[in-house]
Amino acid sequence: MRKLLLFVFCLPIIAQAQVNQDSINIKKMVDEIMTNGKAYDLLRELTKNIGGRLAGSPQQQNAAIWGKRNMEAYHPDQVFMQPCKTPNWQRGGKDFAAITSVNGKAQNKPLAALALGNSLGSNGLIEAELLAVSNFDELEKRKEEVKGKIVYYNSQFNPTRIQTFMAYGETGIYRSSGASRAAKYGAVGVMIHSLSTAPDNEPHTGGMRYDESFPKIPAVALGPNDAKALWEAAKTSKIRVQMQTYGFFLPDADENNVVAELKGTEFPDEIITIGGHLDSWDVNEGAHDDGAGIVQTMELLRTMKALNYQPKHTIHFVLFANEENGGKGGAKYAELAKLNKEKHIFAIESDAGGFTPRSIGITCSPEQFKKFQTWSSFLKPYGTEVTAGGGGADIGPLKSVDKNIVLSGLVPDSQRYFDLHHATTDVFENVNKRELLLGAANMAAIIYLVDQYGVNP
Amino acid sequence: MRKLLLFVFCLPIIAQAQVNQDSINIKKMVDEIMTNGKAYDLLRELTKNIGGRLAGSPQQQNAAIWGKRNMEAYHPDQVFMQPCKTPNWQRGGKDFAAITSVNGKAQNKPLAALALGNSLGSNGLIEAELLAVSNFDELEKRKEEVKGKIVYYNSQFNPTRIQTFMAYGETGIYRSSGASRAAKYGAVGVMIHSLSTAPDNEPHTGGMRYDESFPKIPAVALGPNDAKALWEAAKTSKIRVQMQTYGFFLPDADENNVVAELKGTEFPDEIITIGGHLDSWDVNEGAHDDGAGIVQTMELLRTMKALNYQPKHTIHFVLFANEENGGKGGAKYAELAKLNKEKHIFAIESDAGGFTPRSIGITCSPEQFKKFQTWSSFLKPYGTEVTAGGGGADIGPLKSVDKNIVLSGLVPDSQRYFDLHHATTDVFENVNKRELLLGAANMAAIIYLVDQYGVNP
Repeated sequence: MRKLLLFVFCLPIIAQAQVNQDSINIKKMVDEIMTNGKAYDLLRELTKNIGGRLAGSPQQQNAAIWGKRNMEAYHPDQVFMQPCKTPNWQRGGKDFAAITSVNGKAQNKPLAALALGNSLGSNGLIEAELLAVSNFDELEKRKEEVKGKIVYYNSQFNPTRIQTFMAYGETGIYRSSGASRAAKYGAVGVMIHSLSTAPDNEPHTGGMRYDESFPKIPAVALGPNDAKALWEAAKTSKIRVQMQTYGFFLPDADENNVVAELKGTEFPDEIITIGGHLDSWDVNEGAHDDGAGIVQTMELLRTMKALNYQPKHTIHFVLFANEENGGKGGAKYAELAKLNKEKHIFAIESDAGGFTPRSIGITCSPEQFKKFQTWSSFLKPYGTEVTAGGGGADIGPLKSVDKNIVLSGLVPDSQRYFDLHHATTDVFENVNKRELLLGAANMAAIIYLVDQYGVNP
Repeated sequence: MRKLLLFVFCLPIIAQAQVNQDSINIKKMVDEIMTNGKAYDLLRELTKNIGGRLAGSPQQQNAAIWGKRNMEAYHPDQVFMQPCKTPNWQRGGKDFAAITSVNGKAQNKPLAALALGNSLGSNGLIEAELLAVSNFDELEKRKEEVKGKIVYYNSQFNPTRIQTFMAYGETGIYRSSGASRAAKYGAVGVMIHSLSTAPDNEPHTGGMRYDESFPKIPAVALGPNDAKALWEAAKTSKIRVQMQTYGFFLPDADENNVVAELKGTEFPDEIITIGGHLDSWDVNEGAHDDGAGIVQTMELLRTMKALNYQPKHTIHFVLFANEENGGKGGAKYAELAKLNKEKHIFAIESDAGGFTPRSIGITCSPEQFKKFQTWSSFLKPYGTEVTAGGGGADIGPLKSVDKNIVLSGLVPDSQRYFDLHHATTDVFENVNKRELLLGAANMAAIIYLVDQYGVNP
């Protein structure tokens, strides 16, 4: 009885001691990352030595080899490739757009433009009258006017959305399906306002999809300044525009996910996945999108090995192929997990930029979320907390492997992401070393906690 | 009785309605700033048309005129200048530092260097053996070795400080008093590691002070890369270095604080102060430090006028002179407040960069802090919260006017601030429009609440 009482009285002390020990262990990881982190140097290599790396490009293949070699150098239990077929879209030339007349008066005003990824070539220069609409509602109302026109969607972000991903969610539909929605009514081409927050004129590319039921018309994103001026002019004037694009597909390419593994000491059959995507668009270095996620993933492997951290669960550090225009890497990883009957308990993705982390987003059951929320106190010293909702395109397919998996995403500050996202300005110089490392540090904290205590209450 | 009961039952409803109305009013201000904000355009003017503006320079005087003219254009109740005398330090030439020999072997390696602000010229090129020390403790231990040497302080930031201002606080003493501490033991010059987080070689200037008891020896900050290399080399080698600086003082200059006033409708004699500082160092555009604070202050005036907001308390929008190397503007504002027997209830300063705001820091009594904390829910949608501790060098002197004044500071994310602070890289291009506006938006929210409900429980 005395023993039991002693035990009961000691419980809070033991629990507090554990909390303190966890804080110490997490701080050790964070300090290692902030002091000796190699993520920034790796990012310089990936962006400057390899560069833009769209699925199918030699650069994407080089990036996979680079990732494998570098992760091997940290001596995990194994590193392996997961071959997968990916689309092989080619931009094919220098995209072109211009205003050729305003109210019948000839003009020759070039517009900053980039073809949307997956969109096809225009088969030469096309010229048509512009129909500028606010949104799909207006398109539907004016569908009789669409035939033979080039449709412009005024897909400007709502600047009052404090989380810019919300504005991106609202306007992304014009990029992804604007072309087919206009082609349905006979449009010959489509222009959109770049999905951008930047006060500049850089056009932003990004994935689109054709609805097979309608003609596959060309689609471009315009630089924000040009797009705003065009939208204003179109309110009062009849405008004719030209555009030319060159997009086409080569046969599917052979790419690879790269997976490094640390075998779990207690639960080797329960897998934690950490990842980002290796591919980028062709027009930039893919520094924030998603070089940052790649080097943060590699940094976490480096840190665990440097500190001789032996995880209880098996950890996969995954450099995914082909997130941008196909999602074939993420699909392959889930497909193989299913095939091999793997048990996946937790996956975290970093694919929202290498900016100062604001939270760790978690998608799970309410009971699990309560557990995760208690961990916010461990994150607070490093500037984040646990928030509801998180994941990413590459780890999403794991839900089909195990519906109880907890999906998570690093949530960096979003103010600058869409200044650069899919534009030529997404380069190494626009990534900050401390911000990048701090993202990895917060990922380390949540992964440590999941590894020590699992995901269930 | 029935009436009273009705009243009691309705109280929570009335209170909730007020909370909702406050949320609406705050959102209106935030939306106005995020949609129509002029802070970014004003910052372009200040940095590109006027440029660096150290106290005493024509640019600082032009900046005051520019600030007055622009604030007058928003039609506050009045705009006035507060003349003040400021130091007039001149860099005087192109600062120089170099390694001239290593272990007796001649070298000629220039080091990126900037003289510290207020430091005096070296009277020609000086050359001496280097004594490199970690800190003042080591200097004291080795004081017998100091005579005739140039002392290097390894004032590198501790990278594990998540809040970089904490690292700045720890190393700032080497910049401010390192020269006199070394001169005390006969050093002929001082070099420090720039107070910088950047993985580059840009030297960072900044204010220093001489202790009048000792010789006024020259002091420079070295670029981080050069400083680190020098520190490593000095561990194993005898190194001789050269330095030359040109600093001197002209007679004190005539500068001005610029104050725009909105007269309070209910408490015209109780003043709320909002401010930043107009001056900057000479080597950059002072975009984050403190162009950001200046244009956020002006943005708040613009927004209140645009929305026809009539404050209950009198609000002063203050562009302070001479924060960087004298603090004479802040002192003058407080001196006049005391002279005029003004009552100051609240002052907020933005002088930590135009980055994404993380919190509103508040310095006040514990009872007042409880009140402020309840307002965190109003700030949360805009990414901040109320945290303990806040203020700034320009509003600090107001404490001597009224010891019950609540002092506050905008707390932006600190990861990038010391990459640029006092270096040539603090230019307009390194300020992000949304981040800058969001800082003003969060200031608007807290000022609205203070104006509506005062600072006391």
